[in-house]
Amino acid sequence: MEIKLAQNYGFCFGVKRAIKIAESARGASTIGPLIHNNEEILRLKENFDITTLQSIDDAASIKKAIIRTHGIPKDDLEYLKSKNIEIVDATCPFVTKLQKICEKMSKDGYSVVIFGDENHPEVQSVKSYAENSVVVILSCEDLESLNLSKKVALVSQTTRKFEEFVKIANHLIYTHKEVRVFNTICNATLENQKSTKTLAKEVDVMIVVGGKNSSNTKQVYAISKEFCEDSYLIENENELKKEWFFEKKICGITAGASTPDWIIKKTIEKISNFKV
Amino acid sequence: MEIKLAQNYGFCFGVKRAIKIAESARGASTIGPLIHNNEEILRLKENFDITTLQSIDDAASIKKAIIRTHGIPKDDLEYLKSKNIEIVDATCPFVTKLQKICEKMSKDGYSVVIFGDENHPEVQSVKSYAENSVVVILSCEDLESLNLSKKVALVSQTTRKFEEFVKIANHLIYTHKEVRVFNTICNATLENQKSTKTLAKEVDVMIVVGGKNSSNTKQVYAISKEFCEDSYLIENENELKKEWFFEKKICGITAGASTPDWIIKKTIEKISNFKV
Repeated sequence: MEIKLAQNYGFCFGVKRAIKIAESARGASTIGPLIHNNEEILRLKENFDITTLQSIDDAASIKKAIIRTHGIPKDDLEYLKSKNIEIVDATCPFVTKLQKICEKMSKDGYSVVIFGDENHPEVQSVKSYAENSVVVILSCEDLESLNLSKKVALVSQTTRKFEEFVKIANHLIYTHKEVRVFNTICNATLENQKSTKTLAKEVDVMIVVGGKNSSNTKQVYAISKEFCEDSYLIENENELKKEWFFEKKICGITAGASTPDWIIKKTIEKISNFKV
Repeated sequence: MEIKLAQNYGFCFGVKRAIKIAESARGASTIGPLIHNNEEILRLKENFDITTLQSIDDAASIKKAIIRTHGIPKDDLEYLKSKNIEIVDATCPFVTKLQKICEKMSKDGYSVVIFGDENHPEVQSVKSYAENSVVVILSCEDLESLNLSKKVALVSQTTRKFEEFVKIANHLIYTHKEVRVFNTICNATLENQKSTKTLAKEVDVMIVVGGKNSSNTKQVYAISKEFCEDSYLIENENELKKEWFFEKKICGITAGASTPDWIIKKTIEKISNFKV
């Protein structure tokens, strides 16, 4: 069986940068897991003494806090500062930009619409920067009961699907006089989605490697499934099942933004050894 | 044969307003025909001594100029002022707003994209208010060779089809970080388009009454044709042909924004008398 890798996959710029920052902050604690990948978190713990707090409530006694790529809500940041905790900011620069856009648009009197998952930490951090009218939505239906101002600013969680983002934009453009659309889906995400689509069309079976809680991985998997019915999402090579590959000629592999290269390598090795 | 009228059709707010303004400006001249309807222009000439100049070049010796709904380019306005010609501004307020948006966006460093017909007087007037980077386009293909700034402001000629406007918006959102979309398609136009679509789906034959040079009429006709193959565009009842109605059960009628009610009335009468 032939194995094909997507043209773009795996660690994005923001994740690479955050890991590098964490490696230089020995002994610090991250508020929430640094990335959606337990193996990588374990490596950082063992080699750099980076511990993981489950929430801000556990932070009172730490000395140094790493803000992960998703950022944290404004109030949480204030809380860390009030406790004189040293802050190591590994917020993805694309998320920082998103926070700034929300802050500015909200100040300028726009209703801010965030396309994303209300419960996702990135969305919570971004939302906290819009002071006035701000809503988080996942579909056009969510817009219907809202009373937005005539001027709307639309942003997206960095890891959403572009096609869904644009549907929201179209709906708003139809109903509002001015819609300021900030395409804040990050390029790495867009490229991963594009490559997944291209590859999924060419192969018989697709393996998506990534965290099952990871927003960008979920989007990649949804796209993969759309274009290749036999798509499987795994966190690591141990979840692979031989029967997925029976009578398949070409297997495509891609990965979410928080999947280290070494897990992808192990996945390829295991599939190669199946000899189906 | 049953005859059904579209829920919205005919004279829009801007045209009604312009005619009222012209009726109060006895002896004035319009720069270009006031509306795309010769009968109405004749009525204004006979009853209110309103003459029609073909272009600004003929304006040197007039005393009072009526600016029609489309507006005029900034330079032409300056020219009229420099000749001490009294100006009666019948520019549609929606077009004035469009001019202001272009001026502001251009000043704020946005590349201004106007979705419309480069040769249409409205577009020429609007375009003249964007001082720096401004382009006029009709399709996504037109965008490809352009070198726009990262920040783009998108506006539309007031009479274009919404579905096409949104295609341009989507293309820009994909390729640009910020797209400020101003839905400047006027409500009357949108309502006429919507009503045309609804009616065209219900009937066997559609009659669209309007100027063959009128942008909004052309859009209405295109929508009608899309949903009812047997659609015909006429300027007045004399163009109606009996054979269009043979074996038809329901005839739909709609009209462009510059079609006076009395022409629609005559059209209905003539169709009723066909007795097919």
